[in-house]
Amino acid sequence: MTPPLMQQSKHTLHWARDLVDPALREAVGRLPEPMAKAVGYQFGWADRHGRPVSGSAGKGLRQALVLLSAEAVGGRAESAVHAAAAVELVHNFSLVHDDIIDGDDTRRHRPTVWASFGVPVATLAGDAMLALAFDVLVSVTSDRTLAAGRALTWALLELVRGQSDDVEFEDRPQVGHDEYMRMVAGKTAALFGCACAVGAAMGGAPADTVGHLRRFGHHLGLAFQMVDDLLGIWGDPAVTGKPTRSDLRSRKKTFPVIMALDSDSGEGRAFAALYRRAEPLDEADLDAAATLIERVGVRERTQAEALRHVELALNCLHAVDPAPGPATELTALAHLVAAREH
Amino acid sequence: MTPPLMQQSKHTLHWARDLVDPALREAVGRLPEPMAKAVGYQFGWADRHGRPVSGSAGKGLRQALVLLSAEAVGGRAESAVHAAAAVELVHNFSLVHDDIIDGDDTRRHRPTVWASFGVPVATLAGDAMLALAFDVLVSVTSDRTLAAGRALTWALLELVRGQSDDVEFEDRPQVGHDEYMRMVAGKTAALFGCACAVGAAMGGAPADTVGHLRRFGHHLGLAFQMVDDLLGIWGDPAVTGKPTRSDLRSRKKTFPVIMALDSDSGEGRAFAALYRRAEPLDEADLDAAATLIERVGVRERTQAEALRHVELALNCLHAVDPAPGPATELTALAHLVAAREH
Repeated sequence: MTPPLMQQSKHTLHWARDLVDPALREAVGRLPEPMAKAVGYQFGWADRHGRPVSGSAGKGLRQALVLLSAEAVGGRAESAVHAAAAVELVHNFSLVHDDIIDGDDTRRHRPTVWASFGVPVATLAGDAMLALAFDVLVSVTSDRTLAAGRALTWALLELVRGQSDDVEFEDRPQVGHDEYMRMVAGKTAALFGCACAVGAAMGGAPADTVGHLRRFGHHLGLAFQMVDDLLGIWGDPAVTGKPTRSDLRSRKKTFPVIMALDSDSGEGRAFAALYRRAEPLDEADLDAAATLIERVGVRERTQAEALRHVELALNCLHAVDPAPGPATELTALAHLVAAREH
Repeated sequence: MTPPLMQQSKHTLHWARDLVDPALREAVGRLPEPMAKAVGYQFGWADRHGRPVSGSAGKGLRQALVLLSAEAVGGRAESAVHAAAAVELVHNFSLVHDDIIDGDDTRRHRPTVWASFGVPVATLAGDAMLALAFDVLVSVTSDRTLAAGRALTWALLELVRGQSDDVEFEDRPQVGHDEYMRMVAGKTAALFGCACAVGAAMGGAPADTVGHLRRFGHHLGLAFQMVDDLLGIWGDPAVTGKPTRSDLRSRKKTFPVIMALDSDSGEGRAFAALYRRAEPLDEADLDAAATLIERVGVRERTQAEALRHVELALNCLHAVDPAPGPATELTALAHLVAAREH
């Protein structure tokens, strides 16, 4: 990704944050104090004691997709601010509960919410975020609100399906390519698709345009997850904010892993033997697994597949003849997804 | 409660179940298999292996309130079936997550969902129920859907606040009467109020009628919780389906408990000394605590307070000049709430 495109995306993400943050903070401020504290921590607004901090939140990619999708169809970003806040709340709800479910104790360079506040508070804080998401969405009196609500409940049910599959796959010796794609369609791509669909819907687009933007988000989400899968094996923990090789440690069936398990090479078979072992993998095992899986050649193939889905995404975007400014920004964000290091 | 009234309520609850069950089962059937299994278990449709069973579900009081409220304002029960399913889903979502949060391992004579399927599945199954609740609600194309959605998100945020308070109160030496009432207004009364409000809204009632029915449900919910508090100390486990004295064991600040802690009598002080002890309470301690708290006289006072709220509820109901048939059934249900043994 060229430096000017990277700079543009940074600018876009800031712009979206400035628009959505007030609605998010107003919503979270209505929660009871222990919940507001845990949610503020998750959003990176505060440390675990509730003291304000700056700069450690997520990228806010999904809220930017909502706002730009509204603009891409000729609407105003402001009309989609509440929908964007709802999408960010659903995203962060799913992170907080997924971290409980997966037992992950580190995210964004910090202990996860359950690791900081305990499972009871984290469970309830996730519930609170989900309740707020719908509360923020239905607070908008518009004939588009119901359509946005349906897009959001669809994405939520897909999220649950994807996460349920993901957990189930951990105990399976093998997962097929189609099963992986279906899992990721739920776990990641659905909310990306929903973000673009609700943005377009709130921006006043007709149903077929909404559908094209949903597919734009869907392919972008698939690309995002594939890059996530790469970072989960080869990412630099100092940049990703997650522990080294966390996905290998928990035997996640990620895109490079299922390709390696399916490979007929010597390295592929050695990797499979290690991955299917009953005992936990120590640091030396994890190093060996990462080396073996790299030699199978799946790192490059995963990167190529991610790029292919970025291209498919951009085809869907161009099919709606988007407004030029937002189209450029969405294109830059799409390239950022493929090139990101965290 | 007289046998004919009891018989009428039984009939009403069956009627409501027959109307709402198909919508509930259709919704749950759309979940991925591991989630559908856990949710079917929670609803009492199946055992932990997914084998169909009959008769062990909850009472379905809230779904009956939704349908009867629609009829009470002159609407058709059928217009409120999806709203009733949504309310039951939210209720069961909150039970599943509350059991995780409180560490309760028995409900309705069976291990709770987390105790049967583990915390990860129970967390996700609760999320799935909440997602389904909104999905079922927004599936109805009506100009009343948005109002129903707002009533539901309000109740959800109140539920979170009440549960957050409830958890926080466990570690406090004393809780005031007003604090208790505010906690219960969130934890229990909000969803009862919401049930009646969405029923009335879907039945086509104007805003002030919806408000009266919400207050009917609110007072009924307060009465319900006070009876729950009684059953948590003196209820027969063979009837309640929960362990003996579970509330005393976890030092819950229930209505009789806060009155006893606040009492200036010798028994009250002895109870307070036992309840505030740092060490866990064994069976002999729990027996002693139950005897002491009964001697303070708070059992009768709690029962009287529950009955007072049933009367307040019925005043709110009669204020809307309800249709006679549904009014009789709602009155019978209100008396059932005060007289119930489980």
